[in-house]
Amino acid sequence: MSILIAGTLALDTIETPTDKAERILGGSATYIALGARPLVASIGLVAVIGRDFPDEYRQILKSINVDLSGVQHVKDQDSFAWGCQYRDNLNTRETTFTHLNALEHFQPIVPEHFSQCKVLCLGNLAPHIQSDTLSQVSDASFVACDTMNYWIRETPADLRRVLREVDCLVINDEEAIQMTDQTNLFAAAHQVLRMGPKSLVIKKGEHGAMLFVEDHIFIVPGFPLKDVQDPTGAGDAFLGAMAGSLCNETHIGLDALKRSVVYGGTVASFCVEAIGHDQLMDLSPFTIEQRAAQFGGVTEWPSLQRQTE
Amino acid sequence: MSILIAGTLALDTIETPTDKAERILGGSATYIALGARPLVASIGLVAVIGRDFPDEYRQILKSINVDLSGVQHVKDQDSFAWGCQYRDNLNTRETTFTHLNALEHFQPIVPEHFSQCKVLCLGNLAPHIQSDTLSQVSDASFVACDTMNYWIRETPADLRRVLREVDCLVINDEEAIQMTDQTNLFAAAHQVLRMGPKSLVIKKGEHGAMLFVEDHIFIVPGFPLKDVQDPTGAGDAFLGAMAGSLCNETHIGLDALKRSVVYGGTVASFCVEAIGHDQLMDLSPFTIEQRAAQFGGVTEWPSLQRQTE
Repeated sequence: MSILIAGTLALDTIETPTDKAERILGGSATYIALGARPLVASIGLVAVIGRDFPDEYRQILKSINVDLSGVQHVKDQDSFAWGCQYRDNLNTRETTFTHLNALEHFQPIVPEHFSQCKVLCLGNLAPHIQSDTLSQVSDASFVACDTMNYWIRETPADLRRVLREVDCLVINDEEAIQMTDQTNLFAAAHQVLRMGPKSLVIKKGEHGAMLFVEDHIFIVPGFPLKDVQDPTGAGDAFLGAMAGSLCNETHIGLDALKRSVVYGGTVASFCVEAIGHDQLMDLSPFTIEQRAAQFGGVTEWPSLQRQTE
Repeated sequence: MSILIAGTLALDTIETPTDKAERILGGSATYIALGARPLVASIGLVAVIGRDFPDEYRQILKSINVDLSGVQHVKDQDSFAWGCQYRDNLNTRETTFTHLNALEHFQPIVPEHFSQCKVLCLGNLAPHIQSDTLSQVSDASFVACDTMNYWIRETPADLRRVLREVDCLVINDEEAIQMTDQTNLFAAAHQVLRMGPKSLVIKKGEHGAMLFVEDHIFIVPGFPLKDVQDPTGAGDAFLGAMAGSLCNETHIGLDALKRSVVYGGTVASFCVEAIGHDQLMDLSPFTIEQRAAQFGGVTEWPSLQRQTE
């Protein structure tokens, strides 16, 4: 198994200023898998679904070579469902509903053949579920982890316990500020690193992302897009592509982490171009490489040595 | 004359969450000059001051080799005065007062020996004053121009007239959006370019800046700073450093413009480290070069070719 993902499978209802999609396939595990898929051979999922989860959505995941043998099927509850509404220029999102349903009492069980994964992705879930998953995977080369405002506020001790065991925490700028007593993002980043993760990625939406490893900082802008339709899942797709990129490395040092952030930003830029997961479904490695090269072009630093006549 | 700057000389009153400064030397011309000064030999100012403008402030400008022979001294009015208050994490600014005073009926007069400048910087002023200045300078190699929300809203036709004659418009993200009917910054940028300026720089504060020239886009992040004290004047210092950098070029093509944006971001990062203009006063070319090199380090793109064992 190249990548093992623990996260949510959800039925998403998304409303943007120009579009609406109801009960589409969503959740952190879905978008992480979709982000990783073009870059890796095998993906395993640890998640839970309820009685109303459409078989069609299982088939979608299977069609992209995701192993669902770690997905528990709860027969007497509905699936996790989540709704959101974007306003204005898509920078403001309001959660319209969160029905935990089958997710509420989820206890992850990692199948035997999953425990030999190279990269473990702990998608956004209660920290104790993340810890539980981690304890069942003994020898992953790299553990990446996400979280959200709810867990930062409600279960800080559980979260701290996970953080001490992960190689990279991947969160957004608001979460980084919320985890600390800082108002400055760079000061916050260093405080978060002291909580335990070996490295940190802070995602800033349209403004790009920043990688912190020891004393190194690597900043990428957002890929230039003239038309953004739906940011849902972009952060998870970013994490998935990071994991996919890291899976292909023989040694995970600074350059490998930088590459993973480049692929994270590149794949996330496809994600936001259409509502739901449409843009990610048919994404080929070639298309990703092309955009990654373009991405490098827009950040290409000039020589600071001037040519003199 | 290397650089000619038309702009405001102001008495600024600035309140941050941690500090307050009253009637300090400010204004667009001041910060543009301070941003350019470490990079160029000679700077001329076209501006206006009133009867209350402290002689000490004239001496400060003279001490950094700014030629004040284009500064009109209005004896029966006070100087332009402006106040602002920053809230929270310094991202929200509220103007507390604007007293135009001597600025209200300002008609720029460019001294004869200024008209041979290499770079003309039209700082934030009424567009008709910018046009008037431009008409008195026949042969500048490069004309850079700023504006603000007030002129975009109140005098759009005057602004359009200036835009058709400038080589680079340097504005912030909100202004770019306001100038167009777009909500996406990249779409807005292309619409602004169609209004006439040969190139466009959009400043995004802590998130960096973007250069648009023909089909090229160059994006720089904000320089990583753990402690930001006062953003006042950073945008003008950015423009000044851009102008200073361009002054040193033999040919102003894409690479020269990219370098100017790098120096703009570098010098602006010093500006915000203290309240008012303190950090800019003693800035040496060496200190700027050191930080510009560090700046290049944080954006250094990894090779996308993985090393295989």
